Amino acid sequence: MTLRFTLEARDAGTAARAGVIATERGAFPTPAFMPVGTAATVKGVWPAQLREMGYGCILGNTYHLYLRPGHERIRGQGGLHRFMGWDRLILTDSGGFQVFSLSALRKVSDEAVSFRSHIDGSAHILTPELAVTVQEALGSDLRMVLDECVEYPAERAEAEEAVRRTTLWARRSLAARTLEGGGMFGIVQGGMFPELRRRSVEEICALPFQGFAVGGVSVGEGKELQRETVARTVPMLPECRPRYLMGVGTPGDILFAVSRGVDLFDCVLPTRNARNGMMFTSGGTVSIKQARYADDPLPPDERCDCPTCRAFSRAYLRHLYLQREMLASMAMTVHNLHAYARLMERAREAISRGVFPELVKELRISGIE
Amino acid sequence: MTLRFTLEARDAGTAARAGVIATERGAFPTPAFMPVGTAATVKGVWPAQLREMGYGCILGNTYHLYLRPGHERIRGQGGLHRFMGWDRLILTDSGGFQVFSLSALRKVSDEAVSFRSHIDGSAHILTPELAVTVQEALGSDLRMVLDECVEYPAERAEAEEAVRRTTLWARRSLAARTLEGGGMFGIVQGGMFPELRRRSVEEICALPFQGFAVGGVSVGEGKELQRETVARTVPMLPECRPRYLMGVGTPGDILFAVSRGVDLFDCVLPTRNARNGMMFTSGGTVSIKQARYADDPLPPDERCDCPTCRAFSRAYLRHLYLQREMLASMAMTVHNLHAYARLMERAREAISRGVFPELVKELRISGIE
Repeated sequence: MTLRFTLEARDAGTAARAGVIATERGAFPTPAFMPVGTAATVKGVWPAQLREMGYGCILGNTYHLYLRPGHERIRGQGGLHRFMGWDRLILTDSGGFQVFSLSALRKVSDEAVSFRSHIDGSAHILTPELAVTVQEALGSDLRMVLDECVEYPAERAEAEEAVRRTTLWARRSLAARTLEGGGMFGIVQGGMFPELRRRSVEEICALPFQGFAVGGVSVGEGKELQRETVARTVPMLPECRPRYLMGVGTPGDILFAVSRGVDLFDCVLPTRNARNGMMFTSGGTVSIKQARYADDPLPPDERCDCPTCRAFSRAYLRHLYLQREMLASMAMTVHNLHAYARLMERAREAISRGVFPELVKELRISGIE
Repeated sequence: MTLRFTLEARDAGTAARAGVIATERGAFPTPAFMPVGTAATVKGVWPAQLREMGYGCILGNTYHLYLRPGHERIRGQGGLHRFMGWDRLILTDSGGFQVFSLSALRKVSDEAVSFRSHIDGSAHILTPELAVTVQEALGSDLRMVLDECVEYPAERAEAEEAVRRTTLWARRSLAARTLEGGGMFGIVQGGMFPELRRRSVEEICALPFQGFAVGGVSVGEGKELQRETVARTVPMLPECRPRYLMGVGTPGDILFAVSRGVDLFDCVLPTRNARNGMMFTSGGTVSIKQARYADDPLPPDERCDCPTCRAFSRAYLRHLYLQREMLASMAMTVHNLHAYARLMERAREAISRGVFPELVKELRISGIE
């Protein structure tokens, strides 16, 4: 079976919706957040902990895995799931975003992107076909097409060219598939130009993808412009397919996008910020490096029941953070991912009960924008 | 109640013994290994994981905790147990060993050791009384006296002076106690000089300590000399008190010392080596950085049932290690501590069943010396 998406509830007051994504490997409810497991590990967390938090799908980065340890090595180990000890779903990106953001000397043509590895400078050529091949070798369940993501700000001509190329590559990606099962997502580009977004939606959504992603946001455009783009683009996507907003975001950004009908999210914020000592709590963010927490016996969030909040105080976490102890990153990552999991759980529940706007209001009052 | 030690079994063929150490906080069986939790955390491990592995007592380093975050801060947080979320026993050292090995510009007199912090160069004075005060503030269950540990090799006169000073400090430590409960351990010094070891045993064991430690080993003297010293010193210690061999060691060193009647061990080997990619397995040590493991689908130890061996392959751990992913250290630390916990469990069981020499033989055949 390929990816199946079932819509189970719609919020009356907004475009928010709750559903289930199912593949042969398993199913998970949406709207969902997917923790980022860049190098075949969500940094600082055991796979069993992700399961306990209720995550049904995590993200792997094709660019990183292609370079290290190599997709053929992972295929030889039985695929990414077995390699990393994760038996639920995995979404892989195409590698394109990292090529554009991390690598050196990249050169893009209709045929391919050539680039040099950010690790050792070695030369590589990424084609839409190779992005499919690599993801099939990894054995991920949800796969993304190679797209061209323009920077912000971008000239209109540049954004238009990226839309054209993204559609060209989307068609080649579909033709390059050799495996049944799972699902491939098309990606909509168009920068911050409404007309280009519309054109990209028309071209991409005409193709037989199992899901659709909004790419090219969270590239430095700012909260307002991002929300504008989301609000304009998402309603144009087909109702019956899962919608994925790539690289977003803060709890507030996610809630906004859910209210506009987005189903899937990924972002390094909860994990990366945890390693930098920042925690998402029901009362807003807490930066554990602040001296005010040196003798604070309270847990990071008194309303949270995660393993970190049940066992550790702010004073202890601050001590661990200042001492650069691994447990600082481990514990704060678990807290943040737990907070994101609970946020999505509450969103799904509120949508099912028809009270999503009330949840948004309640969370906004407690400091989540 | 102060520390109570109950001998439950004695091996017929060796001096090995099995017992239980009990305080008001709880009890744990001996012989036991205590993971090192230097800065109020066993690096890379959640307290809950230590509990699951069966550890009943861990070690905290007074020197580190005194400097960062400070013992008064920890006292203010309800003590070290509550601070670090660990409800079983904690043994703290006196800080002396780190003062002698880590700090700068140290100067020792009968009165005190003055030193400069290895972190910021600040000046400090450590007396036997302060070592007691700090450990009482931490609220540890088993406490160590400040002793003078000489380097290896040492002149006889130097070692003799350290024996004299260690006894002087031991008396002052006993007098400095203000808390009931738990237990204080005296430490035997004497370098590699049999006669000085005997003198130190006579002086220290005449004092009303709840346990006795052999200090001044594992300081670079080598396996043979260490075992000689252990074999000569341990039999002189009182039968009815727990015996602690400080800073030892490899599985083989521990088995040897158990066979000579030692009850307690601590060492950074399983944790530090894990972070350096080295694992203890039933077939000997595995260095995961070796290229031979790049495509090895086997778990670190096929005979191990730890969370790491159940979920991860050598190929995956090598990938994590090369990528400097936290999970590499986390997973290998869990494996090594699990292996040490199982080793001690098997030792206790073998002593109880009267087959300890057979266990030693079996483990030696499989590569543990």
